[in-house]
Amino acid sequence: MAQSPLQTARYQYQPKLPAILKENIASIKVEMGAPTTSISDQEELKALFSQTYGAPVASIVKGDNAAASKKVNVGVILSGGQAPGGHNVIAGLFDGIKAGNPESKLYGFLGGPAGIVDNSAVEITAELMDEYRNTGGFDIIGSGRTKLEEESQFDQAIETCKALEISAVVVIGGDDSNTNAAVMGDYFKKQESGVQVVGCPKTIDGDLKNEHIETSFGFDTATKTYSELIGNIGRDANSAKKYWHFIKLMGRSASHIALECALQTQPNICIVSEEVEEKQMTLKQVVSGMADIVEKRASNGDNFGIALIPEGLIEFIPEMKKLIAKLNDLVAIKADEFNALDGLDAQQNWLKGNLEADLFEAFAALPANIKSQLLLDRDPHGNVQVSLIETEKMLSEMVKSELASRSSFSGKFNALHHFFGYEGRCAFPSNFDADYCYSLGYNAFVLIANGLTGYISSVRNLANPADQWIAGGIPLTMMMNMEQRHGHMKPVIKKALVELDGAPFKAFAAKRDEWAVATAYLFPGAIQYYGPAEVCDLTTRTLAYEQA
Amino acid sequence: MAQSPLQTARYQYQPKLPAILKENIASIKVEMGAPTTSISDQEELKALFSQTYGAPVASIVKGDNAAASKKVNVGVILSGGQAPGGHNVIAGLFDGIKAGNPESKLYGFLGGPAGIVDNSAVEITAELMDEYRNTGGFDIIGSGRTKLEEESQFDQAIETCKALEISAVVVIGGDDSNTNAAVMGDYFKKQESGVQVVGCPKTIDGDLKNEHIETSFGFDTATKTYSELIGNIGRDANSAKKYWHFIKLMGRSASHIALECALQTQPNICIVSEEVEEKQMTLKQVVSGMADIVEKRASNGDNFGIALIPEGLIEFIPEMKKLIAKLNDLVAIKADEFNALDGLDAQQNWLKGNLEADLFEAFAALPANIKSQLLLDRDPHGNVQVSLIETEKMLSEMVKSELASRSSFSGKFNALHHFFGYEGRCAFPSNFDADYCYSLGYNAFVLIANGLTGYISSVRNLANPADQWIAGGIPLTMMMNMEQRHGHMKPVIKKALVELDGAPFKAFAAKRDEWAVATAYLFPGAIQYYGPAEVCDLTTRTLAYEQA
Repeated sequence: MAQSPLQTARYQYQPKLPAILKENIASIKVEMGAPTTSISDQEELKALFSQTYGAPVASIVKGDNAAASKKVNVGVILSGGQAPGGHNVIAGLFDGIKAGNPESKLYGFLGGPAGIVDNSAVEITAELMDEYRNTGGFDIIGSGRTKLEEESQFDQAIETCKALEISAVVVIGGDDSNTNAAVMGDYFKKQESGVQVVGCPKTIDGDLKNEHIETSFGFDTATKTYSELIGNIGRDANSAKKYWHFIKLMGRSASHIALECALQTQPNICIVSEEVEEKQMTLKQVVSGMADIVEKRASNGDNFGIALIPEGLIEFIPEMKKLIAKLNDLVAIKADEFNALDGLDAQQNWLKGNLEADLFEAFAALPANIKSQLLLDRDPHGNVQVSLIETEKMLSEMVKSELASRSSFSGKFNALHHFFGYEGRCAFPSNFDADYCYSLGYNAFVLIANGLTGYISSVRNLANPADQWIAGGIPLTMMMNMEQRHGHMKPVIKKALVELDGAPFKAFAAKRDEWAVATAYLFPGAIQYYGPAEVCDLTTRTLAYEQA
Repeated sequence: MAQSPLQTARYQYQPKLPAILKENIASIKVEMGAPTTSISDQEELKALFSQTYGAPVASIVKGDNAAASKKVNVGVILSGGQAPGGHNVIAGLFDGIKAGNPESKLYGFLGGPAGIVDNSAVEITAELMDEYRNTGGFDIIGSGRTKLEEESQFDQAIETCKALEISAVVVIGGDDSNTNAAVMGDYFKKQESGVQVVGCPKTIDGDLKNEHIETSFGFDTATKTYSELIGNIGRDANSAKKYWHFIKLMGRSASHIALECALQTQPNICIVSEEVEEKQMTLKQVVSGMADIVEKRASNGDNFGIALIPEGLIEFIPEMKKLIAKLNDLVAIKADEFNALDGLDAQQNWLKGNLEADLFEAFAALPANIKSQLLLDRDPHGNVQVSLIETEKMLSEMVKSELASRSSFSGKFNALHHFFGYEGRCAFPSNFDADYCYSLGYNAFVLIANGLTGYISSVRNLANPADQWIAGGIPLTMMMNMEQRHGHMKPVIKKALVELDGAPFKAFAAKRDEWAVATAYLFPGAIQYYGPAEVCDLTTRTLAYEQA
């Protein structure tokens, strides 16, 4: 592999481990606490997870564990969207396995969860591993979005594990993938397959989080990368003094990314979807609030600014959520009628007769290109492709119209648009993510070596130096509840949305009025892997506030 | 000013100077070479620059220079688009001035060239300066795009200088701004105003370049920032294996940025505008060539890739250049007719009757949204806004259509789009740009202290350590020729386009067929300011190849 100078240098980085994991792997063991319960729906979940429900929390403590030295084969799966540090989870897992017994093997399933179903795997050798240490991306084995949900898939997975003599599988994924890992783990146990399942918490979105999982990996690096860019653009805006930059940030559900970036860069505006939903705001109210800030800044002669917009916003605005759901229904039920319409005007007329008045009004108020995106860009199931809606352009156009209608506004408003997502998912992991991921992977093997299944690797106390981090295992069922998905009640790991009474949001809310009008941008700059500790070993503001 | 940790740390960075500039400033002087000539049009330029034409190249050598200790006031202007390192030019200038005489003052003109006309200035004190050392942006005094071209502006500038007792002005700008600086310098001398003018070569575009100016400042940092993002996206593409990323890169004229980023990241496709023009390629040929690469990769199972597109491409495709010029003319001449047309279809019909057949064919082949952008998004003068044309979307849509028409193509083609520009113009300057800019600014004062006017600050031998850099002064007229601008012949500094027989392009051309099919992406990662020298003191590949 051709290497950049940074890549060559990063190969030399030795990730930091919690103190307990630095002990000889045969001299640490798990200590089990009392039985646990799920966060709600206990009876249903107990029935669904007959083998693994209610398992105790596991702590890692000193103590002999001869089983750690047993020769074992382990498989690993990268599931879903990329997040910086995935390679280091695998590196930690690899080093843990080999510390137990150099004869043990690690297999990587290729192209995501499909690999275990299809028995598409590669042995991860020391040579292969060394090419990927401390690098971004999931390219060592690739990732994929196949959902492991069906018993037929699980049966095939068992066959694969038998063929490769694999006795444990590590699933590196987000909330959905870890939910599926829990179901698979329970099934494996019920079938007496002898295959354990352990999960690791991945997602740049930061929404796989609870009292045992302080943060998902990748959030640190991704938000630092986006904040680098937002800071650079803020400095540009404040130098040129002529553009409003509307910046959409990846994250379909929660607004953690936007909030963290706001705390790192102090923009004039940051919309938090959860607040919009909580306050039942209309799109008009969101737009009007933004226009107020643009107007206030203009009255100070500042015809420029930075606005951050979470990717998932549109589905948190109650009337838009209803509108999208209704459009999906309508187009599905009256597909022939709809498809026969020629052009946007005809479609709009047809909608007038088919939508409730308030929903049609909401639709009619949208800019033309957004109407087209709602009506034309549909996925193979006929659904609106929410991720393709250019929310940042929609808002700037509506703010522009709103300002044009205000006689009080005499400033200038020129907007530029950005969407940051793919830029940060495969960055070289920050020192924090490099250390955290390596620890998660190493710890996952410790859980395996102690016979656990249906657990997620947990490393806590993350706002402190790595030496003081606390490693353990959390039963996946403990983080679950029942939720409606596609019309059915399903067991799922509860997604952590931004809490409006949480410390990070409160810190933002306390300052945002000041940041709106003053130009108080911060310029975080590029992620540093070397240099002063206060620069290169920073955690996120979210973590710092939450753990303070 | 609130500060990020990196900002606080970067304040401590001491930029490196060429050895000669580390001498006591009163112990270095300029040594003049033989008279020079402009690159062409010598007689016309001699007549236009009666006071400054043909001045000799100045070298900095050891020798007493009592004048360096004279108390003087100097003014500085930031002109045009932001480029990383502008603050360090001012810091070097400031430190040079104060090294000469602590009583001397530096004034910054506010909001770009307009500041000297309007006498809008601020004294740059040590305290103010220290808040901006080694930071990105032009926000210390702001920038602007007012062109200093009229004698009435120059007269007002002289008044401003008199009022502030300023005897020298440093213009930090690109080719146009330095051309204007040359004209202003000549006028100032002719008027016996006693005000010297010295320029500094700024532009991320990299097109202010010749044998004396090895690179313009900002190019290093901006291309490293874009390459960080391209590398991250490449790693994402190679992990997910399902998207082609079409990435447009800032740079309206030359393709230096795209070429440099290609050398840093090894994408599958990089279009170089200069080659398209040289080979008189049609848009169809450009698209077809791209589709060939997509198809070849698909036949290997690789339905993903990275394509880099220079922002200015569309004006380098001969038929598109003609089409845009013709549309501008048509809409200007037949404005009423055109404005009376209702909708794109009516406009297209009208064009059919008003455009030459080949131009209409080129227009008709464009995707609908690009047609709209050509017809609807017009500036206040009625001209097509080339910078708003989404070339990256245009190309991906046309590639998609082309592939759909090929029975030989059985792969998948899903494109995502990016435009990087504002993300890199205000990054913290790389160590290279921090050093180079500081040296340019310090050296500008040495030229001033030696009585020069109509010069540009030149620091060469840049592929070697700063200690070995060579400082000097180049008469601005030496870099000029006459070119047609808005229908008139004007003296201008010749823009450096990518040379197809230059070493950087040849290095790219030698590898591109391999990069097209193989996945050979490099991942440069974020700019590092600390750490191993091979990581944090790298120059651009362009500079390395050109100086090799």
